[in-house]
Amino acid sequence: MPERLIVVGGDAAGMSAASQARRRRGADDLEIVAFERGSFTAYSACGIPYWVAGVVDDRDDLIARRPEEFREKQDIDVRLRHEVVGIDPQDGSVTVRDLADGGEQRHGYDQLMIATGAIPVRPPIEGIEADGVLGVQTLGDGQRVLDALAARQPRRAVVVGAGYIGLEMAEAMVQLGIEVTVVARGLRPMETMDADMGERIADAMRGMGIELHLDVEVTGIEVGSDGWVTGVVTSEAEHPCELVVLGTGTRPNGDLAAEAGIPTGAQGGVETDQRQRSPVAGVWAAGDCTQVFHRVARRPTAIALGTIANKQGRVAGINLGGGYATFPGVLGTAVTKICGLEIARTGLGEDEAREVGFEPVCATVASTTRAHYYPDAAWATVKVVAERESGRLLGAQIVSEEGGAKRIDVFAMALWQGIMVQDLLNVDLSYAPPFSPVWDPVLIAARKAWDAVEADRG
Amino acid sequence: MPERLIVVGGDAAGMSAASQARRRRGADDLEIVAFERGSFTAYSACGIPYWVAGVVDDRDDLIARRPEEFREKQDIDVRLRHEVVGIDPQDGSVTVRDLADGGEQRHGYDQLMIATGAIPVRPPIEGIEADGVLGVQTLGDGQRVLDALAARQPRRAVVVGAGYIGLEMAEAMVQLGIEVTVVARGLRPMETMDADMGERIADAMRGMGIELHLDVEVTGIEVGSDGWVTGVVTSEAEHPCELVVLGTGTRPNGDLAAEAGIPTGAQGGVETDQRQRSPVAGVWAAGDCTQVFHRVARRPTAIALGTIANKQGRVAGINLGGGYATFPGVLGTAVTKICGLEIARTGLGEDEAREVGFEPVCATVASTTRAHYYPDAAWATVKVVAERESGRLLGAQIVSEEGGAKRIDVFAMALWQGIMVQDLLNVDLSYAPPFSPVWDPVLIAARKAWDAVEADRG
Repeated sequence: MPERLIVVGGDAAGMSAASQARRRRGADDLEIVAFERGSFTAYSACGIPYWVAGVVDDRDDLIARRPEEFREKQDIDVRLRHEVVGIDPQDGSVTVRDLADGGEQRHGYDQLMIATGAIPVRPPIEGIEADGVLGVQTLGDGQRVLDALAARQPRRAVVVGAGYIGLEMAEAMVQLGIEVTVVARGLRPMETMDADMGERIADAMRGMGIELHLDVEVTGIEVGSDGWVTGVVTSEAEHPCELVVLGTGTRPNGDLAAEAGIPTGAQGGVETDQRQRSPVAGVWAAGDCTQVFHRVARRPTAIALGTIANKQGRVAGINLGGGYATFPGVLGTAVTKICGLEIARTGLGEDEAREVGFEPVCATVASTTRAHYYPDAAWATVKVVAERESGRLLGAQIVSEEGGAKRIDVFAMALWQGIMVQDLLNVDLSYAPPFSPVWDPVLIAARKAWDAVEADRG
Repeated sequence: MPERLIVVGGDAAGMSAASQARRRRGADDLEIVAFERGSFTAYSACGIPYWVAGVVDDRDDLIARRPEEFREKQDIDVRLRHEVVGIDPQDGSVTVRDLADGGEQRHGYDQLMIATGAIPVRPPIEGIEADGVLGVQTLGDGQRVLDALAARQPRRAVVVGAGYIGLEMAEAMVQLGIEVTVVARGLRPMETMDADMGERIADAMRGMGIELHLDVEVTGIEVGSDGWVTGVVTSEAEHPCELVVLGTGTRPNGDLAAEAGIPTGAQGGVETDQRQRSPVAGVWAAGDCTQVFHRVARRPTAIALGTIANKQGRVAGINLGGGYATFPGVLGTAVTKICGLEIARTGLGEDEAREVGFEPVCATVASTTRAHYYPDAAWATVKVVAERESGRLLGAQIVSEEGGAKRIDVFAMALWQGIMVQDLLNVDLSYAPPFSPVWDPVLIAARKAWDAVEADRG
């Protein structure tokens, strides 16, 4: 009799784990069943804004692997539209609801992989359940946005929230000719970036014709007689619209685990050890639903990101398959392309550094991304955050017209190994006029940060 | 009486050193005189091919700082067209020839900075001194190429050598409508890349219309009755032409130092310690004329590159100014853009690794540079070289349509700190569909390299 692995959630983390486990253990040794409440497996949620904008034509392009492929190539039994509604770790079973008919069944497991992802934070606003108020979390959500665009041809849309997904959706809809208003609580867009890096972002958004209302609270959503949204009311104004997109963030979906007594952390993510095992025997977790160790902050955090989900799922699957792998944590690296800007970060921002108890010393430099004389040299603003006294690199942020995404990776690689900014001054980075000035902005910023650390030492 | 610093050579290394020294010591404490045999200071030799191609309009754009600026802003006495022809370390003096009138003078120094750069390797071929046979080492050389193009309107040009500068010049001239033939000894273009990475380069060159003759020896250069070149003869064919560009490499210009008994290494570069001091008291050296420590090969090497010259010059200048700085060595990082390709390397190639006694294990992967569904996703081939048994990263090479230059820097940063490929598998690199697939090519290549190391262990 083979062992049975049940996977809860059929996206990146769950299916990576299933695939890796299968590579190491044949079907006669390990039966794998994956339950997914939605209609798709292993897709790129990050691609949804590009699909909505029409930059990506076909929904299926966003799907890395379909259920049939898992079944045929890997003998993984994927059941779509099946929601796991309860876990019983004592009994070693899950209760699964078939969303087609509402019928429920118990299934025993030997190993359980929890990969339930993140869920959107829906602020408790009156009217938020109205038709035409949509999240963009799943491929199904993306389809609903496209259906609404096709059916209602909205002239005006409001995006609630000015984080990555909100701004990407705002840009996508502006490109479709829709009048877009972004309303957000924060004092600036993209609050994951330090305040001094945020100015250019607001400028670029307004330059694209996006109306931006910051420091406002959404107090209500207005609904027409047909149940469809007609406007968003904030503490400041009323914004009539025919579509609302919620970009109000997500939280780890650890609810199912918590209800079953599986330990979760402060942000609601499932606790795991280095090998992605939860504290409960036979129960594993990976991806957005987990707590993840932040290597610079040295504490658990919650980050919903496909790369992390893939990596953790792979680690869990290797271990489930009898191998040995550990997940070494994250740096909080993130990048997006919005309104012609590359906006990137890794490690801790200045305020984040203070929040976890470091005293930061910072330096910000403006540079070009190519030799100054080379055509189309663009600008880049690079901020480096270091620890006072030690000079330890704590983080970096880049807002640029080009070349920010991969430059942040250079900082990420440095941070990964825990470097001092003074050890960055002479790193042998590549140079040619089409790609960087003779002193790359990364090196200039590191040098200025080291100057600042030295000046602080006095 | 102030001390006197004499700088031999007014380009990146020499003038960086002079500037840094001046920042720390005023004119009443340190007199600085720089002798430059050419007509320009502190320019970007790397920009010459772009200037020839007309991508950069103005020669002055390539000059970072003119002599007047050094004089007026920093009280550095720069004398152009003055060649230092002898050093007498016992006496503490140099002999300087004024190229305007041939007159020679001795000048005493307290500190001497040797920054004489690299000199082109001119193979001993009959006719190589003919008019129209030009190097592209200095800004003056670049001017001579442009003058020859204007005066002779050549229809056909031959480039001897298929390294960085040769290929960049070949492309520049093709863009001007000239028929270009590249002849080279090697079996492939760009021999600084491993053989398996070179195929695409030859294809791209031929695709642009460059005629490529490899594995041939130049046996003679034909000269017309007016003294101007009329053709290049190789072991294989004769190539009529009206212009010859030499891209036959360079060597450190340590001749002046060697004649004065200042120790030089196997490739001819001046020996220095960590602080850029030569073994002779009061004599310093920096830039292309020096030996430089290769951190992965763990031995001295010679690399002519503006970034290194700037860094070493800065280090020397800080020390000359009474500060403390050391130069930590290089990785052999290099990048170029040729015929639509980004060609990049860092650390050791497979053959280079063997040459210095490592046993390498390699992995090469083909990937896209963006999410596969994102428009204009391009290809990248990434090769990782690791040490067998240990898994230590030894080097990486990338040939790609885009995104290679900064990705090589991610490897460079990893190499800088001496990492094992197994520690690269889960690095938290940035991800968004416009910039990378969910598993960045860097991570995929590292994983395959680790698989290869494990397989080799057996």
